[in-house]
Amino acid sequence: MELWFTEIFSENTGITIKVKKEIASENSDFQEMSIIDTYEFGKIMILDGFIMLTDKDEFIYHEMIAHVPLFSHKNPENILIIGGGDGGAVREVLKHKSVKHIDLVEIDEMVISASIEYFPHISSGLKDPRVTINICDGIKFVKNANIKYDIIIVDSTDPIGPAVGLFQREFYRSIYDILTEEGILVVQGESPYYDSCKRNFIDINRELKAIFSFSRPYFAFIPTYPSGMWSLGYARKDGTDVTEPVRKKNFNTKYYNKEIHIASFAHPEFVKELLG
Amino acid sequence: MELWFTEIFSENTGITIKVKKEIASENSDFQEMSIIDTYEFGKIMILDGFIMLTDKDEFIYHEMIAHVPLFSHKNPENILIIGGGDGGAVREVLKHKSVKHIDLVEIDEMVISASIEYFPHISSGLKDPRVTINICDGIKFVKNANIKYDIIIVDSTDPIGPAVGLFQREFYRSIYDILTEEGILVVQGESPYYDSCKRNFIDINRELKAIFSFSRPYFAFIPTYPSGMWSLGYARKDGTDVTEPVRKKNFNTKYYNKEIHIASFAHPEFVKELLG
Repeated sequence: MELWFTEIFSENTGITIKVKKEIASENSDFQEMSIIDTYEFGKIMILDGFIMLTDKDEFIYHEMIAHVPLFSHKNPENILIIGGGDGGAVREVLKHKSVKHIDLVEIDEMVISASIEYFPHISSGLKDPRVTINICDGIKFVKNANIKYDIIIVDSTDPIGPAVGLFQREFYRSIYDILTEEGILVVQGESPYYDSCKRNFIDINRELKAIFSFSRPYFAFIPTYPSGMWSLGYARKDGTDVTEPVRKKNFNTKYYNKEIHIASFAHPEFVKELLG
Repeated sequence: MELWFTEIFSENTGITIKVKKEIASENSDFQEMSIIDTYEFGKIMILDGFIMLTDKDEFIYHEMIAHVPLFSHKNPENILIIGGGDGGAVREVLKHKSVKHIDLVEIDEMVISASIEYFPHISSGLKDPRVTINICDGIKFVKNANIKYDIIIVDSTDPIGPAVGLFQREFYRSIYDILTEEGILVVQGESPYYDSCKRNFIDINRELKAIFSFSRPYFAFIPTYPSGMWSLGYARKDGTDVTEPVRKKNFNTKYYNKEIHIASFAHPEFVKELLG
């Protein structure tokens, strides 16, 4: 028997992946999770039917969501990560020696436990003494926060279910308030390619623009996300249009480097048109 | 009944697309062609089971294979396109006013006829008086050519079947000989992501390097090619490392622009490692 997992991401298109075996399947109050082992991608975590991460390409997403904002800041010390319970963003953020404290805010403890059990190379940073894990709603956390952060990363699922509020102007406004003066926000930004994602891409960037005086999405090749053309929203509280790294990389990466950092902010013509 | 077309591109992974209907199916001496109409991508041309082009994203591949070399040259006049019988590269090359003559060399007349019949917006340039269509083997054409070209574009299928010779050192050497002193070669360059493509990507770039004193692949997001991370090989006879446009764009595009041109040459760390 051949087992295949197919994610239909735009009603009429999908990715299909040959499966070695199903490893786990679990439900929380928030979502349904499956973990499968595959020939091409190694282990894959699936939430509500959508691929969240794979052993093979998680490095691209996690390096790009972490190093672009951190290398855009001279001295990032306090970091807030909302979502990202798998620990991938934490692992990358910890590579920056200036970082003193990371607050990870994950609504669903199941994601953290599963990552610790099945993805030890991704979750490895979660037990670092600089990391505080907060199991709670990111929206409430941000509203009640009484310290300020140099970098805030919103590493969320798509804007359905528990993540809807993480894509709204009200939330971006609360984030703005708890960023330091030179603080930077990065958010999982959807894709401009398929119609099913395009609306979200446009909305996210419009809302960021409404709150921050400088914002601009950047892009990375992520083969297991719809279309492979994935964006991250980037916004600076100080309003400067800095889209280059301001520090030198002094550790190994597999995707990120200075040239990629700069290049990721280039927009194809059809993207410019979507952003208006 | 629901019809789905699935291309398995790496044995264990594929893209699956909902089909409205099959439009045509035909065999030539060289390959098997199908044309299907789909909900997401409009019409798709499939050769030997692999997606060659779709109405929705052909603009990305054709703009990037044409405008990067042409805008890298001060005054491109004579152009040779090997493969590309669909006419997409021709259409884009013709947007450059300096172009006086295009030799299109396609081994398989079936591709040209099908494109004229089913993809009129792609094949529109094929009847332009500046274009000469040569139905013959590109390898022989290049060996016997008695004029020189400013730009040569190898718009081929994957290195299987009739296209194998288009990926060999011998062929690149013949191309070198018929380029003008400031001539530029661009080739369809496969993907560095899946193991099934990676070998080809490495081989192409090693062979280009063996013949040209400057070569470097560049990248574009092409959602319907395996992984979406697709490369084009770029080589300059004059050996200068120019990877920026040297002229201003004075026509509309949907993907290509100056920033994208420059950004497309940035290489992620894992790509640098593959290229050695």
